[in-house]
Amino acid sequence: MKTHPPANTLQFGHTFTDHMLTIPWNLFTGWGPPKIGPYAPLALEPSSTVFHYAQTLFEGMKAYRDKEGKVSLFRPDMNMKRMNNSAKRIALPTFNGDALLECIKELVRLDKDWIPKEPGYSLYVRPTLIGTQTTIGVSPPADALLFVICCPVGPYYPKGFKPVALYGTTEYIRAAPGGTGAFKLGVNYAPGVVAQREAAKLGYVQNLWLHGPEHYLTEVGTMNMFVVFKQPDGGLELVTPPLDGMILPGVTRDSVLALARSHASHTQHIPNLPSNLTVSERPVTMAEVKAASTEGRLVELFGAGTAAVISPVDRIGYMGEDVLIPTGEDGMGPVSRPIWKELVGRQTGAIKSEWSVTVSE
Amino acid sequence: MKTHPPANTLQFGHTFTDHMLTIPWNLFTGWGPPKIGPYAPLALEPSSTVFHYAQTLFEGMKAYRDKEGKVSLFRPDMNMKRMNNSAKRIALPTFNGDALLECIKELVRLDKDWIPKEPGYSLYVRPTLIGTQTTIGVSPPADALLFVICCPVGPYYPKGFKPVALYGTTEYIRAAPGGTGAFKLGVNYAPGVVAQREAAKLGYVQNLWLHGPEHYLTEVGTMNMFVVFKQPDGGLELVTPPLDGMILPGVTRDSVLALARSHASHTQHIPNLPSNLTVSERPVTMAEVKAASTEGRLVELFGAGTAAVISPVDRIGYMGEDVLIPTGEDGMGPVSRPIWKELVGRQTGAIKSEWSVTVSE
Repeated sequence: MKTHPPANTLQFGHTFTDHMLTIPWNLFTGWGPPKIGPYAPLALEPSSTVFHYAQTLFEGMKAYRDKEGKVSLFRPDMNMKRMNNSAKRIALPTFNGDALLECIKELVRLDKDWIPKEPGYSLYVRPTLIGTQTTIGVSPPADALLFVICCPVGPYYPKGFKPVALYGTTEYIRAAPGGTGAFKLGVNYAPGVVAQREAAKLGYVQNLWLHGPEHYLTEVGTMNMFVVFKQPDGGLELVTPPLDGMILPGVTRDSVLALARSHASHTQHIPNLPSNLTVSERPVTMAEVKAASTEGRLVELFGAGTAAVISPVDRIGYMGEDVLIPTGEDGMGPVSRPIWKELVGRQTGAIKSEWSVTVSE
Repeated sequence: MKTHPPANTLQFGHTFTDHMLTIPWNLFTGWGPPKIGPYAPLALEPSSTVFHYAQTLFEGMKAYRDKEGKVSLFRPDMNMKRMNNSAKRIALPTFNGDALLECIKELVRLDKDWIPKEPGYSLYVRPTLIGTQTTIGVSPPADALLFVICCPVGPYYPKGFKPVALYGTTEYIRAAPGGTGAFKLGVNYAPGVVAQREAAKLGYVQNLWLHGPEHYLTEVGTMNMFVVFKQPDGGLELVTPPLDGMILPGVTRDSVLALARSHASHTQHIPNLPSNLTVSERPVTMAEVKAASTEGRLVELFGAGTAAVISPVDRIGYMGEDVLIPTGEDGMGPVSRPIWKELVGRQTGAIKSEWSVTVSE
């Protein structure tokens, strides 16, 4: 057993728990028996196709402990479904999502003491599927390995929300029609690092992925994005780009949309969320965001993802100037604040919801 | 020592030699000492970034043995240069190409008895560079591993050239402006497997990558491509798409261009290559190829790459019909045949050239 580092020293993805889940697959024999064993190196032939042709996909999900000690996962069915969609896109094997989820629950139960007791902490669960065929032809792999590792993680903003500055990337792309942007594949990440690094060099925290000559806003670094506009009637429009094949169908994205829509349609009331709210999945251009900023119609802009949940933005470096975005005193805006509160309440078990799936009572 | 399988049973990428080269890198300590050891599995933490974010690139080059037993590599400087360019694109470490080449020569010398004695056989050398940082943040990796493995390979067409049928892919893309198509990265390969599989289902051997609404021809499967048109004056135009950021700068592509240009400019004479030859790097659309086919102006179309050298094409399935492409009785055409002969002569040492770099006398 490894020693558990103090919670306040945890960095995202640096510390892993005692165990891991591995499930091998072969074209002729199918899925082998799932095995939970000690966290340990993988021994793979240097000819394994993952090393050559990037045959890899992954998921990210979190296990939370509530005040009574109950451990739960947040909407894990969505991760299982997306993981299978990712597998199909690069000819890796698909699997029974319910069965994998039971194995993951077993792993989380075994390592649940790794979830720090402090509020805001959780266990990040990383299912990964790689091609392990040992012959280097470019083809659907005849061997694969699914593995799941876990790391205890802290709150993304331990000292309260700190809005970030984005750099609108025009030199590199994240996705294109006919490509892989809608799938959680390794191939979407390695090429984005240089864009991030260039944004950092220019003094921005993350990059904003733009698409096409119109500079459509698509994603923020490795998160989905939302923007809020003030409408002529005084109401607010919450907008996120549509799932057009270039946008990752994020679980947090879907949750933000579902909460906002149920509030807007009066199916349920989210405390403090403005009542005159329209929810849109539609394309947004930088020209529209820039004009709204200038005319005082831009209300807020934020990223949404499993790691940070909600990540407010206060400016976008774009074509040589900064587009300013309002943020509240607490760093958040009038739409993101109540949605974040509802979302985190449901994730941590403070607010009961069917999105929360019990792992351990 | 492994036993050497009979040459005629060798399949591309199935058999590896006795040794491998490994060179570790760390952000703070730089490149570690190169080590040539037994071919053996790599032990990597499951959190290694190559498994999650596809931080991998590779090269492909061949070592040939001539009749006198001399072993040489073909234009390896180009592979070293391209490998460094690939590394920069995904924030992996760059290196001294000359120094790496010396290490690769040492490895090839050690395993040169693996090159089958039969004509047409060679040793395929696969340098690979992967991110091995063990923390799962999306960032330039702080650790990497460069390794080189080798496999004995046979002639791509052991029974003479067999032209292949291509399927013009319109649903998936290989590359897009601002993406990674011009770099030899793993991320360009995993997403292409489904397109290949769909082509195969429809009865085609490989897929043809098209770009944009104009359906520009870009690459053939994992090869560069060339097309030859008959011109109004009876001359021939050899065309390949330009290096516009979406085309892999192939060593075979460059060699075909260099040979054809030196012949066209009368700098050197390639036996049997037509004299009235124009060489163009310019975009070509499917509409142009289709019109030329209908009007009898299409002379030939072929793929070019390290594995197959030249791969002639006899038809392209496109938008529900087949575009027919002429081939000679031997499967080749009037431009590819003499260029292939010159190229293979230079590769195998039968024709002296400065492109051939001696590894062992």
